[in-house]
Amino acid sequence: MKTLQLNTIFLAILTAGCFNQREIAKQQISDPVFPKGEKITSNNFVGQAWLQVLMAADSLNPASVGSVTFEPGARTNWHLHPGGQILLVLDGVGYYQEKGSPKRILHKGDAVKCPPDKEHWHGASKDQPFVQVAITNTKEGPTVWLQKVSDEEYHSGDSD
Amino acid sequence: MKTLQLNTIFLAILTAGCFNQREIAKQQISDPVFPKGEKITSNNFVGQAWLQVLMAADSLNPASVGSVTFEPGARTNWHLHPGGQILLVLDGVGYYQEKGSPKRILHKGDAVKCPPDKEHWHGASKDQPFVQVAITNTKEGPTVWLQKVSDEEYHSGDSD
Repeated sequence: MKTLQLNTIFLAILTAGCFNQREIAKQQISDPVFPKGEKITSNNFVGQAWLQVLMAADSLNPASVGSVTFEPGARTNWHLHPGGQILLVLDGVGYYQEKGSPKRILHKGDAVKCPPDKEHWHGASKDQPFVQVAITNTKEGPTVWLQKVSDEEYHSGDSD
Repeated sequence: MKTLQLNTIFLAILTAGCFNQREIAKQQISDPVFPKGEKITSNNFVGQAWLQVLMAADSLNPASVGSVTFEPGARTNWHLHPGGQILLVLDGVGYYQEKGSPKRILHKGDAVKCPPDKEHWHGASKDQPFVQVAITNTKEGPTVWLQKVSDEEYHSGDSD
């Protein structure tokens, strides 16, 4: 009888562990491809985000590549890239919006091309984190940072 | 007693399932970021590889981005990119070699910059698959394909 009880307790712990793993995965990024990197302290972001620089641009190859991890609710300010940018979504759920267009919801596996000089912002969804690789063409000049994304803009199109 | 037996069987199945998952992960890519895409039928590859195009280059942004999944043993031929290339390792274990340098072993989270016009090859390790995102600067012209990677080159530096 004692064996049965111990067995049941062990089974309960194991099962709970499995379900907890799944639950946590919605709020945290488990087994990320790249390290989270350094906390971003720039005023060009709202909320908490981290940057892992993966490759710097040089005189021969203008691509600057980094992995950015946004906590739920964190986002960039509005900004533009004179040479354009490509975003690859590695994990989580995020938002991307170009000026004058509706906010898009991004999921793992999505890829977005942001045209040169197009005002836009991106970041995590309100409930889930977001991990993106940003590939920025630095050939035409550095990123131009603009105003903050208002709460109204951030929540635009939300159903709840 | 019957409950104890059923409980034990269920526990055994659950535990075996967990360990099997880990075992399979070494030979196959589980939960990939991007779809495997289309089988590569080009003679510029040896072994089986798949390409998922993520973003095409255009007149304003010269970066061409794709995810390539190599089966164990699969690799590119020697080749070069006139504008250079950046590789991001998403999963598995792979090899990268530049002409005149030793073969490097790549793991999830690694990033490699291949200089313009530098002869190189890349692919999966002999025992494990390999998933890479390739960011190619197409500004200076298309990839130039060269000779096959010999078995001697592929296995160079292997300890077994």
